Amino acid sequence: MDTHILVTNDDGVDAPGLLALAQEMYKLGQVSILAPDRNWSGGGHVKTIGRPLRVRQIYLADGAIAYASDGAPSDCVALGVFGFFDKKIDIVVSGINPMPNLGHDVTYSGTVTAAMEAMIWDIPGVAFSLGSVENHLSLIDYRPAARIARATVANIIQNSLPQGIFLNVNIPHLPEEAIKGFRVTRQGNRVYRDRLEKRIDPRGKPYYWIGGDAPTGIPQEGTDIGALDGGYVSVTPLQLDLTAYPAQNILNRWSWERHTSQTEDVPA
Amino acid sequence: MDTHILVTNDDGVDAPGLLALAQEMYKLGQVSILAPDRNWSGGGHVKTIGRPLRVRQIYLADGAIAYASDGAPSDCVALGVFGFFDKKIDIVVSGINPMPNLGHDVTYSGTVTAAMEAMIWDIPGVAFSLGSVENHLSLIDYRPAARIARATVANIIQNSLPQGIFLNVNIPHLPEEAIKGFRVTRQGNRVYRDRLEKRIDPRGKPYYWIGGDAPTGIPQEGTDIGALDGGYVSVTPLQLDLTAYPAQNILNRWSWERHTSQTEDVPA
Repeated sequence: MDTHILVTNDDGVDAPGLLALAQEMYKLGQVSILAPDRNWSGGGHVKTIGRPLRVRQIYLADGAIAYASDGAPSDCVALGVFGFFDKKIDIVVSGINPMPNLGHDVTYSGTVTAAMEAMIWDIPGVAFSLGSVENHLSLIDYRPAARIARATVANIIQNSLPQGIFLNVNIPHLPEEAIKGFRVTRQGNRVYRDRLEKRIDPRGKPYYWIGGDAPTGIPQEGTDIGALDGGYVSVTPLQLDLTAYPAQNILNRWSWERHTSQTEDVPA
Repeated sequence: MDTHILVTNDDGVDAPGLLALAQEMYKLGQVSILAPDRNWSGGGHVKTIGRPLRVRQIYLADGAIAYASDGAPSDCVALGVFGFFDKKIDIVVSGINPMPNLGHDVTYSGTVTAAMEAMIWDIPGVAFSLGSVENHLSLIDYRPAARIARATVANIIQNSLPQGIFLNVNIPHLPEEAIKGFRVTRQGNRVYRDRLEKRIDPRGKPYYWIGGDAPTGIPQEGTDIGALDGGYVSVTPLQLDLTAYPAQNILNRWSWERHTSQTEDVPA
């Protein structure tokens, strides 16, 4: 078995969370690293089609060859899947993100949308993020989470993900012995606390920050937020059918025949 | 009733599809227009937090005041929802996109993720896209689709969307009398045909296009793709719980106790 593992992230190819993840992946197979050349946090599920992408070879701190692209995390996955590397990609591993990706974060998150992109191309994808960190980001020890990522990826290689499924994994930022185990979860309810902050630049013109406080969430039993809050690794299987099936019946009761025709038009 | 309607899109504030949509929205309430200053197609569900956003007042071709932002469509919605306009936004309307947004397109699409962002903030959101267009994009007549958008938005205002739901609407590019009616649908199966195209620049360095052919889809009964293919307006209710519930049982049967501890570590 020589599983070809593509490692990417959304914090940029030089992020310590990627290096820690890659170092554990070496133990499971052949590793290729292709990640954005800058931070894409909150960058969403991108397909860059309006401009071409550049890819530059670099060396990571451990001497490994890696590739830095000016595309989004999902573009990096597309590049890998479409043949940037000669060898077919068997699994896409994204992270380790220094902040959790919980609840509705999953469509914003570059970390998660990299795994999402893998699934679009029928390749197993898994995103790894750390639970909330009290201390400064530069003080994070990613190694316990990276070992848990290795156990998770080994599990995926052994069992195979069901078709159309990708995994969103959040790992408590705790010493390994303090982590209570794994929980298979569902998306919880994130509580966003963004606010608009209007400021005036030195030339008197306004600019706007999407500011406010970090999101919180409702730590309900069975959810990603609840598992992480309780000291467990949260493993959420995700899929891309967003259809709100129960709402179909409600919408079907609306009157869709009231159809605005040209002759009903009134001048604006 | 003076419903405050925010009109946005992902093609840029000067796109003809936005103007046609806005002109029909004037008939339903007070309209504010805030959209990207450039094309964001395929740009995903973005929250721009690493830089501030600029907003510039402009005039549309019909003389209406509009605002152009250097953020993504979802950023434009956030700006509007967080108070860029003094008056609270009652509904977010996005489009009209010149190409359909079907199946798995919904997480990539700037048009759809604008409506998604509205839902995150508990505001009704609806995305409008045109079915495949045979002729050149500059020859599109958006007016029939804009009138159908008005009927749809009037329906939403009258009936209220269930909480946590947003709508993805695709409208056939046909004369209004040729459109057969509305269908409430589910997401269908999109077939992507992207390919990597490596080229060499004039200085001998490689660059990479995500190229290939436009996506197709399986026009199954009950799906967005099937409805559009049959000449119907497709109305798909979407939600943001991506949890793959049936996969939870499968994952729960995996052995999650096989937990890679520090002592099992082998040198890389």
